[in-house]
Amino acid sequence: MTLRTQGPVLIVGVGLLGGSIGLALTTAGIDVQISDASPSTLALAADLAVGTPRQEDTVAPTIVIVATPPDVTARVVADQLEKFPDAIVTDVSSVKATIYRELTDIVDADQLTRYVGSHPMAGRERSGVVMARADLFEGNTWVVCPAASSIPAQHAIDDLARDLGAHVVYMTDTEHDKAVAAVSHLPQIVASLTAARLLSLQPEGLALAGRGIRDVTRIAASDPGLWVQILSANTGPVVELLRAFRDDLDECIGALESHPGGRAQLARAIAQGNVGHATIPGKHGLSAKRYAQVVVKVPDQPGQLGILFADVGQAGVSIEDLTMEHSPGAPFGLVTLAVSPQREQQLRASLDQSGWATVE
Amino acid sequence: MTLRTQGPVLIVGVGLLGGSIGLALTTAGIDVQISDASPSTLALAADLAVGTPRQEDTVAPTIVIVATPPDVTARVVADQLEKFPDAIVTDVSSVKATIYRELTDIVDADQLTRYVGSHPMAGRERSGVVMARADLFEGNTWVVCPAASSIPAQHAIDDLARDLGAHVVYMTDTEHDKAVAAVSHLPQIVASLTAARLLSLQPEGLALAGRGIRDVTRIAASDPGLWVQILSANTGPVVELLRAFRDDLDECIGALESHPGGRAQLARAIAQGNVGHATIPGKHGLSAKRYAQVVVKVPDQPGQLGILFADVGQAGVSIEDLTMEHSPGAPFGLVTLAVSPQREQQLRASLDQSGWATVE
Repeated sequence: MTLRTQGPVLIVGVGLLGGSIGLALTTAGIDVQISDASPSTLALAADLAVGTPRQEDTVAPTIVIVATPPDVTARVVADQLEKFPDAIVTDVSSVKATIYRELTDIVDADQLTRYVGSHPMAGRERSGVVMARADLFEGNTWVVCPAASSIPAQHAIDDLARDLGAHVVYMTDTEHDKAVAAVSHLPQIVASLTAARLLSLQPEGLALAGRGIRDVTRIAASDPGLWVQILSANTGPVVELLRAFRDDLDECIGALESHPGGRAQLARAIAQGNVGHATIPGKHGLSAKRYAQVVVKVPDQPGQLGILFADVGQAGVSIEDLTMEHSPGAPFGLVTLAVSPQREQQLRASLDQSGWATVE
Repeated sequence: MTLRTQGPVLIVGVGLLGGSIGLALTTAGIDVQISDASPSTLALAADLAVGTPRQEDTVAPTIVIVATPPDVTARVVADQLEKFPDAIVTDVSSVKATIYRELTDIVDADQLTRYVGSHPMAGRERSGVVMARADLFEGNTWVVCPAASSIPAQHAIDDLARDLGAHVVYMTDTEHDKAVAAVSHLPQIVASLTAARLLSLQPEGLALAGRGIRDVTRIAASDPGLWVQILSANTGPVVELLRAFRDDLDECIGALESHPGGRAQLARAIAQGNVGHATIPGKHGLSAKRYAQVVVKVPDQPGQLGILFADVGQAGVSIEDLTMEHSPGAPFGLVTLAVSPQREQQLRASLDQSGWATVE
């Protein structure tokens, strides 16, 4: 595949994101230079074919991608703008307005036309260059925040994102930070605090945990060090949401205490949650509500899932999403298949014919 | 299969739970009598073979199961205790202490030896007798709250629960209500309030929604009417948890505002969440931490999942859990398979051999 991106590309900071970008570009034949504050990380990245460690006399890059921890990003971006006066510089950190504000303090205004902030919505539960994958960005959203950047600079980063398989969304940095506060930072805090409440339970009480608490607290397993950096770099939008959340929480507490007068208020809170939940886009931008769910009972034996999915495959129906539910001690699991409503009957009929018990 | 339970069993209220109990007992050959405040629901339940509508001259039941909405449960239990002076009466509502307190006000103490509060941990996202399944309770926990009940009464309900395939856990009603507040009621409120915060976002911002927000808010789609009843019947434990949650939230807000001094406090909050998350038991009572995860890239085409799971089946490895991750616009999905750590290498090797790309 011919890429639009013109090398050489310099990647500063080769962790999961920097490493993945390097792998993808190197594979596509682009000259990738790499640097990292840690010599051992740099050597490892070179071994993994992420790119070639940059030497002082190497040819100057056309694009510099700063993929360092958020703490130092603005400083590193400023250095790169100064060092390579013809290069376009981007960063990939998960908050944008703080970095831009810092930058405007330390960089001349005319230099900022060469800076394009961006945020690839990708990442895995583990970090580090050994987790890097050339296809990490494929099909994911890549946010570009134009700010003061020139049109050619924006095009260069747009091309880069699309070369990596991402689709590009343009937003201001404040819109971006407000959005990630709602879809990522608030949920993280809420999940952590909900999980912490479990510490007051005895083991018998914990035995009552079902799928609800598991889902709500899954991301509570995340790394505290990384999250302190992320949250600290987006305090404004996060605090605003936390305060609004707390106001709603206070209303719920008040409603519960003024029982029975508070019933309408409680119902409104849960109903608002219904509406909010329905705004989350599903696959390919469809509303998550628009899938039909087919629940199948699957015996807990090796090979049973294989038989089920072979049968699903024969039905010729594309599965949009699937989850498996397993109760402690159960001899079987429930597999929920999400399909387009037009295909639901076809799938049910086909599974029935193959002898599967579907549930609803 | 021979059941321990001695009929006839009367089920008062044939919704999802009452209907499922009736189906299971009827299938096993036990005489099941049913009644319901709604004649049409009763007729539907009879058509679905849940049981036979009880007539005034029918033989008296040995066990009465009250499966009405929580609002009226205590009143109905009291009526049944009076009407059938030799029967053991249980209820299946999801809160226990409030009902018992109401009961002690309206029933003589010597009658309470025949009442056993219970709570089968089962339920589906949809309710109603048409959703009833004979196997609804199989492998799930069934909480029994002994209170003032006699030993024979407890044995009768223990037998009933085990006949339905559940495993029985004994708790006091206050322990029970505290546990469900933490594993079910707090998560519901938190999920609803988090989902409501999404209403402030523009569509472009919502495009940034990933798996984290989806998981945290999945249960926000629940029925407001039902939840108002549940929460209103467990105000004490729920308010206590909400207040503790709010205190933690205030600390996080304070920490974010006092940046950089608050970093340690934030890290502690996220770390406490790690610990709380790790207390949730996994399948068969194992800690959820103890599974290895194998992530496989699956092209978005009908039949691909079938081939994958057929290959997994050939590997002879039992899959403990699975989830599928799908980014908007992606031409493939990521299927995460959880397996016992001892089997991870076997599964990876087998998938490699079949040509699948595994990720970490």
